[in-house]
Amino acid sequence: MPDNKITEKFHPSFTKLGLSSIVAISEQVRDLEAATGRKIIPFQRGDLNLEAPEYVKDAAKKAIDANRTRYPRSGGEPGFKEAVVKYHKESGVELVPENIVCLHGGQEGLQLSFSLFRGKRVLGFSPYWPCLTGNIFPYSENAFETVPLEEKNGKLSFDPAELKRKLKDADLLYVNTPHNPTGKVFDRAELRLIDEAARKAGVVIVSDEPYDKIVYDGREHISMLEFGNENTIVVFSASKSYAVTGFRAGYAVSRNTEIAALLTRANYSQTAGVATPIQDACAAALNDRARREEWVAFLKDTMQRRRDALYTGLAEVFPGLVKPQGAFYYFLDMRGIIPPAVKNRDEYLLNLFLDSDVAIVPGASFGKEGFIRVSFSGTGLEETAEGARRIVRAVKKAKADGAARTALAGRVSL
Amino acid sequence: MPDNKITEKFHPSFTKLGLSSIVAISEQVRDLEAATGRKIIPFQRGDLNLEAPEYVKDAAKKAIDANRTRYPRSGGEPGFKEAVVKYHKESGVELVPENIVCLHGGQEGLQLSFSLFRGKRVLGFSPYWPCLTGNIFPYSENAFETVPLEEKNGKLSFDPAELKRKLKDADLLYVNTPHNPTGKVFDRAELRLIDEAARKAGVVIVSDEPYDKIVYDGREHISMLEFGNENTIVVFSASKSYAVTGFRAGYAVSRNTEIAALLTRANYSQTAGVATPIQDACAAALNDRARREEWVAFLKDTMQRRRDALYTGLAEVFPGLVKPQGAFYYFLDMRGIIPPAVKNRDEYLLNLFLDSDVAIVPGASFGKEGFIRVSFSGTGLEETAEGARRIVRAVKKAKADGAARTALAGRVSL
Repeated sequence: MPDNKITEKFHPSFTKLGLSSIVAISEQVRDLEAATGRKIIPFQRGDLNLEAPEYVKDAAKKAIDANRTRYPRSGGEPGFKEAVVKYHKESGVELVPENIVCLHGGQEGLQLSFSLFRGKRVLGFSPYWPCLTGNIFPYSENAFETVPLEEKNGKLSFDPAELKRKLKDADLLYVNTPHNPTGKVFDRAELRLIDEAARKAGVVIVSDEPYDKIVYDGREHISMLEFGNENTIVVFSASKSYAVTGFRAGYAVSRNTEIAALLTRANYSQTAGVATPIQDACAAALNDRARREEWVAFLKDTMQRRRDALYTGLAEVFPGLVKPQGAFYYFLDMRGIIPPAVKNRDEYLLNLFLDSDVAIVPGASFGKEGFIRVSFSGTGLEETAEGARRIVRAVKKAKADGAARTALAGRVSL
Repeated sequence: MPDNKITEKFHPSFTKLGLSSIVAISEQVRDLEAATGRKIIPFQRGDLNLEAPEYVKDAAKKAIDANRTRYPRSGGEPGFKEAVVKYHKESGVELVPENIVCLHGGQEGLQLSFSLFRGKRVLGFSPYWPCLTGNIFPYSENAFETVPLEEKNGKLSFDPAELKRKLKDADLLYVNTPHNPTGKVFDRAELRLIDEAARKAGVVIVSDEPYDKIVYDGREHISMLEFGNENTIVVFSASKSYAVTGFRAGYAVSRNTEIAALLTRANYSQTAGVATPIQDACAAALNDRARREEWVAFLKDTMQRRRDALYTGLAEVFPGLVKPQGAFYYFLDMRGIIPPAVKNRDEYLLNLFLDSDVAIVPGASFGKEGFIRVSFSGTGLEETAEGARRIVRAVKKAKADGAARTALAGRVSL
């Protein structure tokens, strides 16, 4: 049987899928380290290098000991859903188990939410998480249009008029707060405006909130759940909240129980649910409020120190630098140091920093060529500070090489 | 925003999804038990009631202790793939890691394999696993055609001429051995014939082999992998092999590395992979050959005793009964005891047996109305024997009621 015949039968939603640019860079870094013995600072990662809290690990082990190793209930174990209901009640959000679907991380939450509206039009803010355009939307065959986040009067935000205009041609609106890659935490007024505009336009909101625990300077995470919009799907993840990216667990919430029921059936069809002992561990993570709050305080503090170390280090060459409000990324404008003759600006930036033993993710896959994302999720405090020094060194070198014709623009000015 | 607008935007691949008939029956049983205090024998289940082997549970716990809680590698951890390669080498099958994709159980293996060929035509044998027509094919939008398995000269098999004829109008062939719901174990000659016919027709084989460890009377499981067909995808599951349906883990194998690479990307897009500690546990399950063989011997012995208890019990009313060769199901022809006036034969059978405190799955969802599937996966030896007595009692009662006009036909004669 000639191979080309088979190849022709592959569905385009599969053949258009990329592998994550971040994964590709990580593999390049691994190869480079193995070949040269150099130690490269992994600012490309989106994976916390913290050990998961003991009480969460204990709960997983206890579940295994108790032989909680049989099929989970469709859409989530009753105990998991109860824990989620109780947790959101803490912040005044009333839910019922029928609103909740336990899923394989934020990833499956987004994939299923967008696949439910296969082939429809999605509006989002740019820059955005690269997995959307590399995987999620090719898989769900959705068209993607954006509204830019831009700095005005020292604040990163969007133009409400543009949002409202573009919502007219959209079926779905993708929101992400705290925001990857800018670190912006949308405030209540912005979210309310977004919610009202989406309702008016008859647009379903998909709100991606995996960094809800990681907000700085005493800031509060505002969830899209707050606005009581029936046609909103909010996706939460255990990954970043408890440093368990490898548990592949999270959940989607919709007040529209028909949406929740369809997500449940699709999850059953795809994987028959999230591993039972892992659901138990996630329920325990939520249920033990004292231990959770202690852990989240530690998590915030640890990440805020890293954020501040980067800020201090980078200030020398980025005088107007704005600190991220949440998540664990800086998104830096490097357009000013790229020689005009450079054709592939992403490649130039990747190599410029790799030459100084620091790995970053160039901006094109976030929809912003000439920028870099610097993640402090996978580096200790000292390593983070050293990484800042290396970034500064690379930037100075690029400038000294006389490569840059324009003034250095490194501020988070989108 | 009017709700009907949203509803109209749901993709039909979601709105056509069913919930498993088996899940629905289990929930009915639970309600009935709670309301009446009766104890119903759960012959509807497809979930082993055995405790998972200690060495597998220990491996999962050790992985958690060792903080193996970060993102898995795309397509499977290197250690997981190595274990799979080594395991198949035991039976003379040579693989490379690039042939293997770690997935969320047989479920995701089938869902992704068929979704890769979205909208194409699938041929399979009937009866078949209900999830195919209830979930997998509606989700992948595949058309499904069947070749019946029929008893000839005391052997359950198919007509090769019919298979070859129908393969001309197919893109994919679904094979399942050991077979759910008949317990048939396809022999080497049958599988070779299937393989050759599929190659000749340019048809991709998807072979579903979750019961590979559960074969009786010293019989051997023959995998479709044996025939070296590049365009075959074989799906394996840890669920039934190690009594860990709640781990949601398994893997797909294809010698066509392009297929394996596309399944990897799609798995990444859907869920970003199987939980890292669970992959470790599955690798350990395969790697410790001595403990694995001890466990599998126990598993086979336990299930064979149950199978034989049912056989002994049922022989009285099913004189020509054939023992299943593998898996853990009897598929019994009940057409002879259903009163001709009965409109919903499935409902009649479900209620007939529920009245005798035994739950079964009626045949319509397997593509064979008038049959029942009796699973001995979830019942101890004594309970299995008692279940057989209750089935006999129900059958006798139906006959005594003068309901049956024709002779009782309870043999596995498809």
